[in-house]
Amino acid sequence: MSPPFIANADVSPLIASSPPEIGRVSTVYSQVQAHRIDQPLPFPSVLKNPFKILDGPPTSAAGNPDEIAKLFPGLFGQPSARLAPSDSSSVQVNKKLKIGVVLSGGQAPGGHNVISGLFDYLQVHAKGSTLYGFKGGPAGIMKCKYVKLTGEFIYPYRNQGGFDMICSGRDKIETPEQFKQAEETAQKLDLDGLVVIGGDDSNTNACLLAENFSCFQIRSKNLKTRVIGCPKTIDGDLKCKEVPTSFGFDTACKIYSEMIGNVMVDARSTGKYYHFVRLMGRAASHITLECALQTHPNITIIGEEVAAKKLTLKNVTDYIVDVISKRSELGYNYGVVLIPEGLIDFIPEVQQLISELNEILAHDIIDEDGLWKKKLTTQSHHLFEFFPQAIQEQLLLERDPHGNVQVAKIETEKMLIQMVETELEKRRQEGAYNGGQFKGQSHFFGYEGRCGLPTNFDSTYCYALGYTAGALLQSGKTGLISSVGNLAAPVEDWTAGGTPLTSLMDVERRHGKFKPVIKKAMVELDGAPFKKFSALREQWGVENQYISPGPIQFVGPASNVINHTLLLELGAQA
Amino acid sequence: MSPPFIANADVSPLIASSPPEIGRVSTVYSQVQAHRIDQPLPFPSVLKNPFKILDGPPTSAAGNPDEIAKLFPGLFGQPSARLAPSDSSSVQVNKKLKIGVVLSGGQAPGGHNVISGLFDYLQVHAKGSTLYGFKGGPAGIMKCKYVKLTGEFIYPYRNQGGFDMICSGRDKIETPEQFKQAEETAQKLDLDGLVVIGGDDSNTNACLLAENFSCFQIRSKNLKTRVIGCPKTIDGDLKCKEVPTSFGFDTACKIYSEMIGNVMVDARSTGKYYHFVRLMGRAASHITLECALQTHPNITIIGEEVAAKKLTLKNVTDYIVDVISKRSELGYNYGVVLIPEGLIDFIPEVQQLISELNEILAHDIIDEDGLWKKKLTTQSHHLFEFFPQAIQEQLLLERDPHGNVQVAKIETEKMLIQMVETELEKRRQEGAYNGGQFKGQSHFFGYEGRCGLPTNFDSTYCYALGYTAGALLQSGKTGLISSVGNLAAPVEDWTAGGTPLTSLMDVERRHGKFKPVIKKAMVELDGAPFKKFSALREQWGVENQYISPGPIQFVGPASNVINHTLLLELGAQA
Repeated sequence: MSPPFIANADVSPLIASSPPEIGRVSTVYSQVQAHRIDQPLPFPSVLKNPFKILDGPPTSAAGNPDEIAKLFPGLFGQPSARLAPSDSSSVQVNKKLKIGVVLSGGQAPGGHNVISGLFDYLQVHAKGSTLYGFKGGPAGIMKCKYVKLTGEFIYPYRNQGGFDMICSGRDKIETPEQFKQAEETAQKLDLDGLVVIGGDDSNTNACLLAENFSCFQIRSKNLKTRVIGCPKTIDGDLKCKEVPTSFGFDTACKIYSEMIGNVMVDARSTGKYYHFVRLMGRAASHITLECALQTHPNITIIGEEVAAKKLTLKNVTDYIVDVISKRSELGYNYGVVLIPEGLIDFIPEVQQLISELNEILAHDIIDEDGLWKKKLTTQSHHLFEFFPQAIQEQLLLERDPHGNVQVAKIETEKMLIQMVETELEKRRQEGAYNGGQFKGQSHFFGYEGRCGLPTNFDSTYCYALGYTAGALLQSGKTGLISSVGNLAAPVEDWTAGGTPLTSLMDVERRHGKFKPVIKKAMVELDGAPFKKFSALREQWGVENQYISPGPIQFVGPASNVINHTLLLELGAQA
Repeated sequence: MSPPFIANADVSPLIASSPPEIGRVSTVYSQVQAHRIDQPLPFPSVLKNPFKILDGPPTSAAGNPDEIAKLFPGLFGQPSARLAPSDSSSVQVNKKLKIGVVLSGGQAPGGHNVISGLFDYLQVHAKGSTLYGFKGGPAGIMKCKYVKLTGEFIYPYRNQGGFDMICSGRDKIETPEQFKQAEETAQKLDLDGLVVIGGDDSNTNACLLAENFSCFQIRSKNLKTRVIGCPKTIDGDLKCKEVPTSFGFDTACKIYSEMIGNVMVDARSTGKYYHFVRLMGRAASHITLECALQTHPNITIIGEEVAAKKLTLKNVTDYIVDVISKRSELGYNYGVVLIPEGLIDFIPEVQQLISELNEILAHDIIDEDGLWKKKLTTQSHHLFEFFPQAIQEQLLLERDPHGNVQVAKIETEKMLIQMVETELEKRRQEGAYNGGQFKGQSHFFGYEGRCGLPTNFDSTYCYALGYTAGALLQSGKTGLISSVGNLAAPVEDWTAGGTPLTSLMDVERRHGKFKPVIKKAMVELDGAPFKKFSALREQWGVENQYISPGPIQFVGPASNVINHTLLLELGAQA
């Protein structure tokens, strides 16, 4: 895959002569960071040459199309857009545009490249345009807090990790007042378009904004501001046929896999520890599954499977202990266990306990004598007592501002270590286990992966997403999510276009009202990645087929490898 | 630094036709691992061409030379050895040798390359020699458990992390019976030499073995087995003028720095967390200092400075809170704090509490009502109550087989987060702090760094150490530590030789007897690395000069960068 085009080179990159007011300065960069800025990246041919926009057939919704049609009267049913080669550009070139861009939700490697791709599109195809970066996420739109993005300002962020160019936030634009604030900002800045870079919730929000800006049926005005979304999340749970992956997933999984691989070699070298690694990823287990495919751990728990098979915590513990016993018979008193942070969400008994606790804690005092426990159902009481003390404390003490248990803060890896210890001891007493001593080491890999330097794949993918978003806006499109496809092919052959956000939507009933949602893509148990994993996991359990992927490389061997999940889903890997 | 020599290519690397009985198979490697095996590495010229051994002047000891002389009557005072170019090799070539090699203590990236360097030396300079790998550390010597190392067996481990080729262990050869076992093994295998790859304790042990094998004054026999040590430890606390660094330090620090850099970008992007990162390194703070120089965190605690200034835990907490307050005034409610795992060892009040606890727990029962606490001194009682509950529990529950508190298991990072929270709340109550909310996130980076793929530096350095160890053994040397120097110069100009282990030694009085020890190299407060850090840390505290080193690269930019500590100590960096 020779890079025929330097993705960042069609606008002269400028080194800031004086440090910009706020922002990074590339002069303090590490050698690797500095090299990344100017590293040539390949670029889809369709974006390189003159193109036109082709519309597809009308679309529907992922579920409940009638309700979605009611919720999005202006946007529902619109066609997908596809960029196709053209002798001359069909879009209205040379009209200067005013575009806003916002990062929404958690960090994911590559966000800066979406912005630089968008910026470069405007430089090439709508010279003299203005790009506003809304600061701190959607709140920046509502409060009209922005920075005017220039080539100089953007330069140090090219191919770099993090979201700190304009930062992000988790606010949502939901109430009529908030929509009004967004409208005011759009009017004040005379915005032709807005690009929302975010996950499932943020893209749902983007679609509501698009509808709100454009739909004269609901409001008496028709704003010219068009809205395009971009698929972001390391969790990998925002994807569909047209949007094969969310950006950041590739980089985050490779960073975690590097660390897992190192820990595996350590386990095998030391010969005495079981490393329990909890991995970020919210409810979905995509990250855990991908890391398993990259590294071949002895034990991997996939939340979606636990849910589908209705496994209890005892079942999960027994499964782990069974593998440990088998390994001990083979002489291996060490291993690596991967656990998705969402696991706890998938175990009905735990969910039940948490909801009872939320109820009790909202109204009662937790007395030291434990009288409050009588308010638990018998099953929840047993489960609570079954937990190690540290987990009991996390359940009682780690609460969010609404008083609810913070599930993500529960150290499931430590919980499982203690439960495995107890079960092994029980089996030893019963004579059912006479293997080596069990020593658990716990890890949580999360923050290390959200802001790493994006891989070549994420850098290239993000740049193309941003570039495509620019093309869609300039073509007058709204309510689409930037869609770059054919990702198993050489970058030159990648496709670009936009998919109606309404076509990804279903409704959920909340407080008696229908709310539109983009359904989270969970691990499919009949999907290719899970099937490959489940065909191999028994072997990985007892044999040691560890793979150490090593650190992400930006040049040379393995630098252009794409993650297993994506390749398997695209059918490009057996 | 163009590689004129392929370090691994002078013996034809063979791909195992069938998997060896025990060991790795390169066919299941990741692309990066596979590429590493055959990657050409530069090689010191002196090892490439015919060489002779030159002896230096007689040596003494690091302290108490009279006692060391008594403890090592056979070895004390022997000269250093230096390899020098020669028209023809002065060593007795073509005599087949029988050599043993052992990995001792904790994992460090590069251990496999020491072995492959040694193996290749024997292949080139003593064809037909036999290399035995003792399995599981010094216990393998005592039990005569070994694997015969062949080119085929070693091949998949070249330039790979981990110690699993022959594994390691923490046993020591100490008692007369154990020395006898080692002798028996040496005799049984007819060993001409033994290479001990280990840290300060293991090299002390290596010297005792060398003395024992060679010294006819103490024992009536004179074994031909010579012993050479190699400097291993990620902690960086085994070094001196002749041995500028221990292997593994470079790789481990770069892995931790990658992760710290990622967390820094996350902190800046999110804008709401203080990440407290505890780093491995045992008592010494070299790793923490090096990571600080690579990444520029806001706050770095150096254990040796805490000790020198006799700081209390309250002082350390106040320092952290002061920086947090200053940052909050500047609008930064986030940051990164580095903490060496040895910190707790350096605070006299904590040491006092732990020793009182060890005493109490050895004899008393910990009653739930806390009556046992009355046995603590007032100061220790206060300190114990000052600790958050989780730390109290760690102090009471996490005990080693001898019943002692396991200092390394104390989660200092969580302890400091809680103490900072408390102090900030106190200041807020007093009106002395009115900044943003403080949210701490804790991390421990340790196991991720001990078995990573060795950097180009560690790969090259280790290979040269092993190759040199072979040369020293063949020249009849014993009781030396393999010494590769001039490391700031291009690899071609590196020097090679051996330093008498006795010259690194001092004595410690234990149980009324003098015991020889290689003094741990701690962070020197007047050394160049600390001085550079201390000149910059104030700036790093309030400004955000974060550097994200990114993942270790094996080819291209930054792939041959050497760590700051080594370069500064060699005077090669301002």
